[in-house]
Amino acid sequence: MSLKIINENIMRSNEDYAQKVREQLKKNRILMINMISSPGSGKTSLLEKIIPPLKGKVSLAVIEGDCYTAKDGERINVLNVPVIQINTQGSCHLNAATIHQVITELELEKIDLIFIENVGNLVCPAAFDLGEDYKMAIVSTAEGSDKPVKYPMLFRDSHITVLNKMDLLEHTDFDLQVFKQDIARINPDNRIFEISCKTGQGIEQVVKFFLTQVKK
Amino acid sequence: MSLKIINENIMRSNEDYAQKVREQLKKNRILMINMISSPGSGKTSLLEKIIPPLKGKVSLAVIEGDCYTAKDGERINVLNVPVIQINTQGSCHLNAATIHQVITELELEKIDLIFIENVGNLVCPAAFDLGEDYKMAIVSTAEGSDKPVKYPMLFRDSHITVLNKMDLLEHTDFDLQVFKQDIARINPDNRIFEISCKTGQGIEQVVKFFLTQVKK
Repeated sequence: MSLKIINENIMRSNEDYAQKVREQLKKNRILMINMISSPGSGKTSLLEKIIPPLKGKVSLAVIEGDCYTAKDGERINVLNVPVIQINTQGSCHLNAATIHQVITELELEKIDLIFIENVGNLVCPAAFDLGEDYKMAIVSTAEGSDKPVKYPMLFRDSHITVLNKMDLLEHTDFDLQVFKQDIARINPDNRIFEISCKTGQGIEQVVKFFLTQVKK
Repeated sequence: MSLKIINENIMRSNEDYAQKVREQLKKNRILMINMISSPGSGKTSLLEKIIPPLKGKVSLAVIEGDCYTAKDGERINVLNVPVIQINTQGSCHLNAATIHQVITELELEKIDLIFIENVGNLVCPAAFDLGEDYKMAIVSTAEGSDKPVKYPMLFRDSHITVLNKMDLLEHTDFDLQVFKQDIARINPDNRIFEISCKTGQGIEQVVKFFLTQVKK
């Protein structure tokens, strides 16, 4: 059996599980977002900022993916929302089989919105469908404006992009115009939010956006 | 054939090729460094800073790994050193078979030092031995000080860690003491360089370090 066939089998099996997850979400009218970014772009910080204002209005849960630690899960846990921590034991992405397995631990009929914080990596997480409604790319101004061109799959498949650390913009060489143009070229439907988890800039807009997206 | 056996075969085959690369390097007394970081931590920027002062004293070459583009290779090319660009077509890491294949394109007997810029990712590149003398981790102050704890394999296997964007330190919550303590706990032999590719801080020390390491 060649490696190519094995890889195809992995992707087909993943797609089967993603479909099962999608059916569970549909049945329970749940919106699920797959958050993808490099390590340190601010996925957990963004959740820390948007969960408190969302919490009073919708019922939400978080699935945390990390290679080894539960550090991010612990940060979310203090916000008093259901959190499931998945340790991938070195794997660089989450897969749909794992999501299908853990999602049953949540009281799905009571939940409106699930955020999945994927493993910090711009490459493989973009290739694995988790059954989410859509992917959200998070990048920071400190990473440079060339990320859309270098990791086009993520920006092509993301419905929204959050550009974090706007407070650092003036201290970096980040070219906002190039960044926006490149995303618009790769995926004109990808909506960009400019935010700063440090100063709070743009957080309200992200919160409002998710409130318009929930299904019940 | 189970997936586990396939994975073991991949790693064994990679180790065989890494050994072949190591033999070629040894024969030609070449120092080879495998640079690993998140996207946007500053691998290419670091090369842009250290290559000009190194170039007059040692003969060097660069192998650039990227998913799709040749943008980094083009940035190095203007420095007038031999560059080989590898596009992994979506794979999130370089492997030793590819290095073994491309390294013969270089005039090895004339080269003292090879930098490999791996695909931007903290997870998988750390697991694939490329036959290098050692790995160099690059992180930036904008990414947060929790990276050693969250990606311990990289810091355990790296001989040096370059902490870039020291110019942004005062604008971030990065805890330098925690960062250093965590690295020292994971790998006491991992030497840390605090640098800024923007201001030039620490670049001279990195250059001096590599000059003491070359083998001819």
